[in-house]
Amino acid sequence: MDKNLEDYSHKRFNILTGEWVLVSPHRSKRPWQGQNEAVNNEKRPSYDESCYLCATNTRISGDVNPDYKGTYVFTNDFAALQSDSPSFEVNDGLLQAQSETGICKVICFSPDHSKSLADMDVPGITEVVTTWQREYKEIGSKEAINYVQIFENKGAVMGCSNPHPHGQIWSQSSLPNEVFKKDNTQKAYFADKKSSLLGDYLSQELNGDRDRIIYENDAFVVLIPFWAVWPFEAMIAPKRHLNSILDMTEEEATLYAEAISVLTKAYDALFNTSFPYSSGIHQAPTDGQDNSHWHWHMSFYPPLLRSATVKKFMVGYEMFGTPQRDITAEGAAQRLRDLL
Amino acid sequence: MDKNLEDYSHKRFNILTGEWVLVSPHRSKRPWQGQNEAVNNEKRPSYDESCYLCATNTRISGDVNPDYKGTYVFTNDFAALQSDSPSFEVNDGLLQAQSETGICKVICFSPDHSKSLADMDVPGITEVVTTWQREYKEIGSKEAINYVQIFENKGAVMGCSNPHPHGQIWSQSSLPNEVFKKDNTQKAYFADKKSSLLGDYLSQELNGDRDRIIYENDAFVVLIPFWAVWPFEAMIAPKRHLNSILDMTEEEATLYAEAISVLTKAYDALFNTSFPYSSGIHQAPTDGQDNSHWHWHMSFYPPLLRSATVKKFMVGYEMFGTPQRDITAEGAAQRLRDLL
Ligand SMILES: O=P(O)(O)O[C@H]1O[C@H](CO)[C@@H](O)[C@H](O)[C@H]1O
Ligand SMILES: O=P(O)(O)O[C@H]1O[C@H](CO)[C@@H](O)[C@H](O)[C@H]1O
Repeated sequence: MDKNLEDYSHKRFNILTGEWVLVSPHRSKRPWQGQNEAVNNEKRPSYDESCYLCATNTRISGDVNPDYKGTYVFTNDFAALQSDSPSFEVNDGLLQAQSETGICKVICFSPDHSKSLADMDVPGITEVVTTWQREYKEIGSKEAINYVQIFENKGAVMGCSNPHPHGQIWSQSSLPNEVFKKDNTQKAYFADKKSSLLGDYLSQELNGDRDRIIYENDAFVVLIPFWAVWPFEAMIAPKRHLNSILDMTEEEATLYAEAISVLTKAYDALFNTSFPYSSGIHQAPTDGQDNSHWHWHMSFYPPLLRSATVKKFMVGYEMFGTPQRDITAEGAAQRLRDLL
Repeated sequence: MDKNLEDYSHKRFNILTGEWVLVSPHRSKRPWQGQNEAVNNEKRPSYDESCYLCATNTRISGDVNPDYKGTYVFTNDFAALQSDSPSFEVNDGLLQAQSETGICKVICFSPDHSKSLADMDVPGITEVVTTWQREYKEIGSKEAINYVQIFENKGAVMGCSNPHPHGQIWSQSSLPNEVFKKDNTQKAYFADKKSSLLGDYLSQELNGDRDRIIYENDAFVVLIPFWAVWPFEAMIAPKRHLNSILDMTEEEATLYAEAISVLTKAYDALFNTSFPYSSGIHQAPTDGQDNSHWHWHMSFYPPLLRSATVKKFMVGYEMFGTPQRDITAEGAAQRLRDLL
């Protein structure tokens, strides 16, 4: 790798979003005098009677959770998107708005309140994967739903209000900003080269000096993308050019679960804490169009930088300018790789 | 205003960035069970011997701050951008990077450790404005600097490591992502209509039902833009089409300081706390090009949502999809207006 990237401030280009990240490798020795996050490594019980996600408990809506054994899915009691609102448009000079309908769901990963994906076994995670597939298919098949965003907020620092292992799905009629960008870049590349943008990138990484690769198995690569923004941001992507998670074979679904397991365990080991992150799957829209340019992938955006209590703040310069990072993607990959 | 915008989920278009925000007005009654932020309303002394920004104290670099009386500017001891690094480019298949040089500075707003902009008087804030003008001019005149980003991170929750009133400047050779977007939209509009995009928007707001306007004086408007992302996000913009802060008259500089004073005082009154935010000025690049399409403005992105301890988390859906908000821009403007 170009030695300059280890020593000098530079910017790297994200081929999927078309945006840049500012990298300041020389800056990682800066002392930290700012806010420390609370760590909560308290062991949780397997069942908590005050948890609204535990089996058999009553939610705020009055609904009672069934005595579920694997995953459990329900419609979000405080959905950000309504499914039954009227269709309208505001086109008043420079004020432009459009109605947005959708469906928001919550997915409990396990009835065991004490666990996270990092503590679950591969068959348990495979069941989560199967649930994502089922929901993506079912929700995506609805006329009004053109994109299904699967994600997880893990940890209080990521706005997660309940430590019970769970993720969410917000689905809607139009493409979200980030998906729109990735749709355009992949479409243009695919039209031009007749091959997958992300697939070609993965090949380059796999056949290069591999300094951003954390792990691979027969079907998946886990790596820190060249353009990663968050200190330990990582991506899990299928080696084959698959448009959505529905295109996996059963064996691939298991290998995907294994990749999730490996990455989340490495994360927990890094600072010896239940590692917070937001993760999300970007994949083909469900708009009935030709989406053969899409190569699905899952990304993890963890905020921690130096320890279990010191996070990276994406604030002033980052909000008004460009995301900025201190440690390089290569340095971060090395640290995670060493923990496997 | 279209009544639907008060009742149903919808998306609004940001004319300056070309991106959308998802608005869920029906959702503001959601109970909060997540993380609470620490509040620190402790009265600080006017001088703190352990503060590296107070006058006459020694910084980590060994430099001693002068006994300054108004503002004080120095080069950041841990600059994210280096001014003396070599120029290089990586163009290796799908890996693309470029060297980025720049200058990072810190601006102390006052020697008084106990104050924030909200506590300073208008002449004191005017001196800060004059300092911003001087630095923008001086740094921007350098050959290698094509953009000067002025910003402030206020409060521990915004990654600010020192409560002493101060802001920063990061300047660099290329346009940051956010500036690039606003450059394009303003350029296209100006070419098409021969008038300022933001200026036309401000006129529409000033001549409409004014439900997003918080305050105005002879030269400035303080408002919550139609497309605001953060719960109490606000913008201060000159009524005249000025490309940069250098184009203000002396009287306008004072009126700008007054607008800052009014807004920051309203913020502090809202939750009866020293209100955290990141603020930043977007203005004409210093690249020697024709930037007559630029209409400079200052934005405030404050994270608090419901109280001094409950913030809005821009996490999973927001990171992978689109920024989302629960209270409307109009509701937020009303609350701030009521505090004047
Ligand atoms: O330079 P500071 O104040 O130490 O650092 C703060 O502001 C910077 C610019 O927004 C951010 O990159 C840092 O994450 C934040 O902690
Ligand atoms: O839906 P939750 O878990 O209550 O809320 C959390 O995730 C949402 C989706 O990323 C965010 O909009 C909220 O700010 C966050 O607190």
